[in-house]
Amino acid sequence: MINVEIIGFAAAILTTSAFLPQVYQTWKTKDVSGLSLPMLSLFFIGVALWFVYGVCKESLSLIFANGITVISSLLLIYFKLKYVKK
Amino acid sequence: MINVEIIGFAAAILTTSAFLPQVYQTWKTKDVSGLSLPMLSLFFIGVALWFVYGVCKESLSLIFANGITVISSLLLIYFKLKYVKK
Repeated sequence: MINVEIIGFAAAILTTSAFLPQVYQTWKTKDVSGLSLPMLSLFFIGVALWFVYGVCKESLSLIFANGITVISSLLLIYFKLKYVKK
Repeated sequence: MINVEIIGFAAAILTTSAFLPQVYQTWKTKDVSGLSLPMLSLFFIGVALWFVYGVCKESLSLIFANGITVISSLLLIYFKLKYVKK
């Protein structure tokens, strides 16, 4: 029998890995022109809710993936506020 | 008692909404220079695995959110292949 959490963790690693280069690139280039603050904020709230949902469903994969992404998207919001052209 | 699926659906709507403008913008501008094909492919596989995970866990929120995002990311891959500068 396949352990469902293995599928979840593979999914978590892949989708989280696809998001982290954006954080790194924004940090290196300080180019936040392509980032929308309202969009980032909605995304952040959404990911935080996924995290809560993962806790309620006792899904380790969801908690792991969205825990990392909550922090990543918070970093992007911070960069956006810090590096935005006045 | 709070229905957990309401949290899940709120999460699904927020994170899916944050992704759709990217698809729309790419479709309108045909500018795929900022999109990485390997990254999109990893993301697509990750989202497809989340979908399978959602089916295994009988989570309607996960099935709904990742069903839409599987199609969206497949569209982005199609745009990337179609509009890439030769």
